[in-house]
This record gives sequence, C-alpha cells and structure tokens, in this order.
Amino acid sequence: MTDNTVFVGNKPVMNYVLAVVTQFNQGADHVAVKARGKAISRAVDTAEIATNRFLEGVQKSGIITGTELVDTESGQTNVSSIEITLSKIP
Amino acid sequence: MTDNTVFVGNKPVMNYVLAVVTQFNQGADHVAVKARGKAISRAVDTAEIATNRFLEGVQKSGIITGTELVDTESGQTNVSSIEITLSKIP
Repeated sequence: MTDNTVFVGNKPVMNYVLAVVTQFNQGADHVAVKARGKAISRAVDTAEIATNRFLEGVQKSGIITGTELVDTESGQTNVSSIEITLSKIP
Repeated sequence: MTDNTVFVGNKPVMNYVLAVVTQFNQGADHVAVKARGKAISRAVDTAEIATNRFLEGVQKSGIITGTELVDTESGQTNVSSIEITLSKIP
C-alpha cells in the first residue's frame, strides 16, 4: 500500500478534495489529510466536503492534533498540526 | 456543573487560552473549545497552547469535526466546525 496522505496548503480547497477522492477511487482504504497552521481550517473543510458530497461509504475514523517545532529565519517556532484519517466503512 | 465552553473567534489566541485556563482553575473537569470556519486553526492553537504550556494534568479527550448550515445575506452556506474537549486526567 502506498502512502495515502494529502497535505493541505494554501490552494483552493477543491484541489485537495479532488486529491482525496482520487486516492479512494484508486483503491485506497484510508487517506490521511494533514495540515499545519492556518491551513488547518482548510483541512477540516477538505474532509467534510469529501465525505459529505463526494464519497459514499467513507467516514472520519480519527482526528489527531499536535504541535510541531518549525525552523524559520527568526529562529524556531511552534505550529499546530492536524491529521484527519478518512476510512472506507468495512 | 455550568456549561464549560469556550467559543474561539477572531481575537488573539491568548484571550482564549486564558479563558480555558480560568475555567479549569475555577474547578471545571472538562472544557470544550469550539470554533467554525477560519477560526478552526485558532481553536487548535488554543488547545495546544493551553495543554502544553499552562495546564498540568489536562489532556485532549476528544475531537469532533462537522458541518453546519449558516444563514448569510446571500442565502445558506455550509461551514466546517470543530469541538475539542479538554479533560482533567483522573
């Protein structure tokens, strides 16, 4: 099984929804939607839109939040992260 | 027990961290951190900062995301929502 992860950034949300839907259509059983910082809201949007409007028989099976240490020009800083796992209902 | 909910909006994140910490200091066993739309990332920040830097013996006990129908001037629209429950470790 390949690594079924979609990293959500600053592009329009439908780009990421399409990426998620494509992975399930290619046979994935689980897809992880990940984001950091301000993209976290868009990751939640991605998971909601994908499960409510495009994918039959797929549900949110887990949500994890955390804090990551990131290097910037002005030193290290903490950013929040989220990982939403979507899974086919067996 | 009163309703221990902190609604996260557009103010600086530390305002909401302080609200969460205050509720635990007043004896709450659980505090729900809620947000909608773009404030979702700030809600995750609030929960992370509160548990990592200010509260001993408090952990994230549950995270729920969903979609809510909201009335706007131009009709109804869907927005994503999040609810992060923080609980004292027994």
